[in-house]
Amino acid sequence: MEVFYSKDIDAGLVTLPEEESAHCVRVLRHRSGDEIFVIDGDGAMMRCRLVDDSPKKAVAEVVETTRNWGSHPYALTLAVCPTKNNDRYEWFAEKATEVGVDTIVPVIGDHSERKVFKTDRLRRILLSAAKQSLKGKVPEVMEPVSVKDFIRSCRKTDALKLIAHCMEGERTSVRPALEGYGGSSYVALIGPEGDFSPEEVALAIDCGFVPVHLGESRLRTETAAFTMAEAVYFKYL
Amino acid sequence: MEVFYSKDIDAGLVTLPEEESAHCVRVLRHRSGDEIFVIDGDGAMMRCRLVDDSPKKAVAEVVETTRNWGSHPYALTLAVCPTKNNDRYEWFAEKATEVGVDTIVPVIGDHSERKVFKTDRLRRILLSAAKQSLKGKVPEVMEPVSVKDFIRSCRKTDALKLIAHCMEGERTSVRPALEGYGGSSYVALIGPEGDFSPEEVALAIDCGFVPVHLGESRLRTETAAFTMAEAVYFKYL
Repeated sequence: MEVFYSKDIDAGLVTLPEEESAHCVRVLRHRSGDEIFVIDGDGAMMRCRLVDDSPKKAVAEVVETTRNWGSHPYALTLAVCPTKNNDRYEWFAEKATEVGVDTIVPVIGDHSERKVFKTDRLRRILLSAAKQSLKGKVPEVMEPVSVKDFIRSCRKTDALKLIAHCMEGERTSVRPALEGYGGSSYVALIGPEGDFSPEEVALAIDCGFVPVHLGESRLRTETAAFTMAEAVYFKYL
Repeated sequence: MEVFYSKDIDAGLVTLPEEESAHCVRVLRHRSGDEIFVIDGDGAMMRCRLVDDSPKKAVAEVVETTRNWGSHPYALTLAVCPTKNNDRYEWFAEKATEVGVDTIVPVIGDHSERKVFKTDRLRRILLSAAKQSLKGKVPEVMEPVSVKDFIRSCRKTDALKLIAHCMEGERTSVRPALEGYGGSSYVALIGPEGDFSPEEVALAIDCGFVPVHLGESRLRTETAAFTMAEAVYFKYL
């Protein structure tokens, strides 16, 4: 099943952006009258009939709309420090999209080696991952923010807030932490290769984050981030 | 913590292979008298003192040996069909090593597009992943075998045997399937992009495999395989 993407929907007509039009008409050779499937990136999947097979601006008529297509029964925000190697971050974000995540926040920690993060490329990767894994919603990628500012911005949320760090100190295993929570909104913080600073952990705890560990294995940043996505996913299996 | 690898251990002396010697002496500039850490790939980690800093054949004296270093409390065999794109298989195997896996079997299914699989490169990647994630044991990579031969070879094992497929038919969620089992040995089969054939699934069930699903998300082969490793890992968290 091939899925296209468009946000240009008006009066029952979907116009595909240029790149999607070319893929639909030139590569896949769809012609007027063909059935195609289009997501709006906000959760809806539209079954459509192509009415204009222009390779620059294809237009399709919406036949049926399915809301929350391929959705998951929770809301998950993953705030993850950029890895030194960008591929590893992209890998995590792509895989988390397959499994289920709503928002990805690149956060810059006191110990982050990489302080700059470009979000454009990641957005394109996540759009492609959402289409591939048949999800109507494309996870949102926020602009980078410092770990401390992110923590402060979460002070008032009633989501379950977790910070996975590797320092000494009291931490519970992520599984009982998740299972003891009756809600369905989660925020999880994953630090950089050099871990969070003690100040960041203290601020997080002060703002209501629960310190957790992800088991005995020493996981890379991107593996820890994806493991967090899996841990939440498994709670609902 | 930098970890070296050697299987050449005799009378309390460890000889590093040429590549490891060069890395130890030329790159990291270790000299005789320095403390170094060496794994044997079978589970042991040796704290050693370098006694010969030859960059071609470094020798170290074993001071202390820790068995089952970085081990996990279960035995997991993942039999996974090669993905069309080899990088994706390597990614899965590397990540599964970080989390915990004992044996990886490339299995060729009736619907596998890729019928040939080279194991040498994967073995090198897993050695490096084990060192990076501080594990004494390097997962074993078996030579490729057909899905059906692999299934038949498991007929007599008393491990919990799972087959994750996407066809219609009775399947339980992987989580209750794992939690209802009191042992600690697991074998899991993950199919190719085109799924298993009905004959493969029927043979597996006949040989005692439990058909499972991995939830609502449509996962790629390598994501499904890693998700299986995570599911077993989480059981012990």
